[in-house]
Amino acid sequence: MNITREEALAYVKPHLKTSRYEHTVRVADQAVELAERYGVNHHHAEVAAALHDYAKYKPLEEMRRWIVQDRRLPKDLLDYHHELWHGPVGALMLEKEIGLSDAAVRSAIDCHTTGKKHMSQLDKVIFLADYIEPGRDFPGVDEVRKIAKSDLDQACALALKNTIIFLVQKGRTVYPNTFHAYNDFI
Amino acid sequence: MNITREEALAYVKPHLKTSRYEHTVRVADQAVELAERYGVNHHHAEVAAALHDYAKYKPLEEMRRWIVQDRRLPKDLLDYHHELWHGPVGALMLEKEIGLSDAAVRSAIDCHTTGKKHMSQLDKVIFLADYIEPGRDFPGVDEVRKIAKSDLDQACALALKNTIIFLVQKGRTVYPNTFHAYNDFI
Repeated sequence: MNITREEALAYVKPHLKTSRYEHTVRVADQAVELAERYGVNHHHAEVAAALHDYAKYKPLEEMRRWIVQDRRLPKDLLDYHHELWHGPVGALMLEKEIGLSDAAVRSAIDCHTTGKKHMSQLDKVIFLADYIEPGRDFPGVDEVRKIAKSDLDQACALALKNTIIFLVQKGRTVYPNTFHAYNDFI
Repeated sequence: MNITREEALAYVKPHLKTSRYEHTVRVADQAVELAERYGVNHHHAEVAAALHDYAKYKPLEEMRRWIVQDRRLPKDLLDYHHELWHGPVGALMLEKEIGLSDAAVRSAIDCHTTGKKHMSQLDKVIFLADYIEPGRDFPGVDEVRKIAKSDLDQACALALKNTIIFLVQKGRTVYPNTFHAYNDFI
């Protein structure tokens, strides 16, 4: 993969609000820390993290067209909250726009919001870095941060558990990949 | 359907512990009440309720064989808690043993523990009757009982919500059909 962390950050910067860009930089730092701890390729982690929210502010209609037209995107995304679209759509936009060919990096971008069944170590690192980066401040995040120091799977399981309980208590739908990921970790 | 409520109860009685048989009678009474309230066939409801726990105490190995051998049973049941097996397996055992041919009644027995996507009105009545029968005493059941007086779907949604939160808080797996049912009601 030829793209550097700096190039990836420079590419996404104009597409993000300042606060979202700052979040992205923190996710990259956090991802590198986790990657080193758990023996994941450092460069893959920092590039995936730098790019993970690329499509966050893309117009909904543009993302909807991608979902409808690209056969690799599951159509049931349209039945769930559009907040879930930017990961899967972003991964494919980046493939097209900057030739992001690394399937492992695209996978980590794809599933960073929802998780999925059979997550790779890189998928877990990006999912978790996004959940625990120092700017995050939701109930339970400190316990996940603590566990993330010693057990990547346990930390992901707890993050998924918190997410499912949060969504169900609010009476919101839960994307199937999220409970597949949860069951997988359990 | 030729079988009466009394015949159905007599058939299951020797297969159940006394307390479970008494639960079954209460589910049948509750199911009839719900069926009348929501315009569901009274007789289907009482027979499905009478039969719903038929396989509850079947040996695990016998149920496992059914799951492995009957192509209509989803194999992923084996990956989840055996507490979930008696519904789907019981429905097919009853088809074989007493010629239970009514697909709607078999469906209600099948999904009474987990729920499923696109539940019929009868499925909902049996699922809910099993959850709220007067012998039940878990947190939140009174609120579900209250809603069950006016809104079948809302009551099922809340029962599923409580179930998912309970399981996830305990760190237990959640059978996919339960999430599909939940998302469906939401």
